[in-house]
Amino acid sequence: MSNPSILILPGDGIGPEVMAEVRKVIDWYGAKRDLAFDVSEDLVGGAAYDKHGVPLADETMAKAQEVDAVLLGAVGGPKYDVLDFSVKPERGLLRLRKEMDLFANLRPAQCFDALADFSSLKKEVVAGLDIMIVRELTSGVYFGEPRGIFEEGNERVGINTQRYTESEIERAARAAFELAMKRNKKLCSMEKANVMESGILWREVVTRVGEEYPEVELSHMYADNGAMQLVRAPKQFDVIVTDNLFGDILSDCAAMLTGSLGMLPSASLGAPMANGRPKAMYEPVHGSAPDIAGQGKANPIACILSFAMALRYSFDQGDEATRLETAIEKVLADGVRTADLMGPEGGTPVSTSEMGDKIIEAL
Amino acid sequence: MSNPSILILPGDGIGPEVMAEVRKVIDWYGAKRDLAFDVSEDLVGGAAYDKHGVPLADETMAKAQEVDAVLLGAVGGPKYDVLDFSVKPERGLLRLRKEMDLFANLRPAQCFDALADFSSLKKEVVAGLDIMIVRELTSGVYFGEPRGIFEEGNERVGINTQRYTESEIERAARAAFELAMKRNKKLCSMEKANVMESGILWREVVTRVGEEYPEVELSHMYADNGAMQLVRAPKQFDVIVTDNLFGDILSDCAAMLTGSLGMLPSASLGAPMANGRPKAMYEPVHGSAPDIAGQGKANPIACILSFAMALRYSFDQGDEATRLETAIEKVLADGVRTADLMGPEGGTPVSTSEMGDKIIEAL
Ligand SMILES: CC(C)[C@H](C(=O)O)[C@@H](O)C(=O)O
Ligand SMILES: CC(C)[C@H](C(=O)O)[C@@H](O)C(=O)O
Repeated sequence: MSNPSILILPGDGIGPEVMAEVRKVIDWYGAKRDLAFDVSEDLVGGAAYDKHGVPLADETMAKAQEVDAVLLGAVGGPKYDVLDFSVKPERGLLRLRKEMDLFANLRPAQCFDALADFSSLKKEVVAGLDIMIVRELTSGVYFGEPRGIFEEGNERVGINTQRYTESEIERAARAAFELAMKRNKKLCSMEKANVMESGILWREVVTRVGEEYPEVELSHMYADNGAMQLVRAPKQFDVIVTDNLFGDILSDCAAMLTGSLGMLPSASLGAPMANGRPKAMYEPVHGSAPDIAGQGKANPIACILSFAMALRYSFDQGDEATRLETAIEKVLADGVRTADLMGPEGGTPVSTSEMGDKIIEAL
Repeated sequence: MSNPSILILPGDGIGPEVMAEVRKVIDWYGAKRDLAFDVSEDLVGGAAYDKHGVPLADETMAKAQEVDAVLLGAVGGPKYDVLDFSVKPERGLLRLRKEMDLFANLRPAQCFDALADFSSLKKEVVAGLDIMIVRELTSGVYFGEPRGIFEEGNERVGINTQRYTESEIERAARAAFELAMKRNKKLCSMEKANVMESGILWREVVTRVGEEYPEVELSHMYADNGAMQLVRAPKQFDVIVTDNLFGDILSDCAAMLTGSLGMLPSASLGAPMANGRPKAMYEPVHGSAPDIAGQGKANPIACILSFAMALRYSFDQGDEATRLETAIEKVLADGVRTADLMGPEGGTPVSTSEMGDKIIEAL
């Protein structure tokens, strides 16, 4: 049997630097744990635009459809701000999500003990925080038609369409309930059913799916209140399910609560492929951070933890994922710190690649 | 000349209780400062539905169009959750906003010195916080057509439309720049121009309006990053301008940073009327809080501060607004506390109406 395949798309900014550290980890698994992967690499985002004039070449898209998992770094940078909307770096990312049909975006917001002081929130509010946000990723206002800027009378109008079918809501909800079953069996669904009909349908479908999961305690919250509650008392949540746009904002809000943006991974999952593995893409929550790119300052942990999620969700290697996560916790407990993690209590300052090396050592 | 007119719409839940305290303050101004108002009262939300079968009667709508200012308490409650979308309490509020054309919703997020410990954020992150969010309030996904739940093939689809014309963006932007000029001359505009064409148009128009305000330092931020930055370092902001839906979420997030939701007022302003005063509605940011309604536990300060905003923005009585705000600060500094403000450091517990009395005393 051939090795499982991984396509690495480092992208822009700090993407290539952090991905280099993931390569080390992948190689370690091949050498030491007999877990070899067939790894290929390609371009996405501004890097793809520079070479191909589009933020994702068709051949790259085709490759992404064939592999067992895609690992993506980050896309975007000021250099590309002037580009037309249709070829902006983000379009490459959105095309991958859409064409791979990655409908369930899993975004853990976890507060690492060694880093609880980093949060702008009081330590007691966030210590031990462990939320999972399930964001619908292939529909909603991100992809709804009609969309565009149109002439209307003597002015222009900007239009986007929020659109959700029952089946789109259902599959995202089901992914969330399944996760809740493996966690603390609490699911909170967020929308604006008091203002938007799409939110009414969302609430109705989530409620219906919930009947299949009687053990899961389901609640509903308006998204504005959700943002408030995340700030006020985030530990009240276990799993949250919400749409593409609310998920974008609420998951970033939740990520920032932990104070360790450089630590947060994500998984975007689709339907099972012929081999039983889900279509999948893994990426850190942080962006391309052009201001620190190329200086060895970036924290590779979010990207390495994204690979841990790949081990768990794509390759059925939950124990190996835990091994990797434990190694990272140990390195942090030892006081090893990239620049973003360096607080008043000090620590051993390391570069991006030194952090990777330390994690390999701890493995 | 006749007295300026105010229509009070207490609404549901704690609305009537907190509004009773505002009445005391209005009466005080008439008796002691020779500032008499013609006050009338009517129903909105669930209270209106109970009487008229609609959340805002046409006669009430007509009255709201005629007065100099509307003061609204809060709408909604579990009792009305089962109602059809078209007659839910919220529709009364949304009808007022839309038909009065109140396009600029001003939501200050201020951290009161005496209450800085209440925030879930670290004191140094929020002490002295003073942000003003300008939320567009009459357009966007709240009102765009088409909207509804439709049959499509063998399933249903929920649709809402995000829609902004140039002139809608322009007038909201102008309101925000004017406020920035009176404050610290810093304006941050938030959208998702990387994903939504309506956001591209938003950014373009705000930038164009900004050319008329060269003294104001204008920046742009994606709304997801905006949510992060509000949590990470809210004091970086002075004025924020954003659309109806992002404004709903981001202003609630900002409100919660202060830790004193029971303290936050808002003003919704439209175009100038014949008498030069803007169309205006004032309401607390907090909701109807059905869980504590009717128990004398509610904090009336947000609603009283909303009246202070009315003094400032509708009645050109900035000094009297400041007098009222100062009286409230004094009462807080004296340790007078409704239940929501009672922290570990203690204080003098008071009921809703005792808090109103204390404020009158301090005036
Ligand atoms: C880069 C951008 C298109 C993307 C999004 O809006 O989904 C990002 O913010 C994210 O959350 O992954
Ligand atoms: C009650 C509801 C319709 C309203 C809104 O969504 O605008 C509220 O959340 C607000 O922010 O004033």
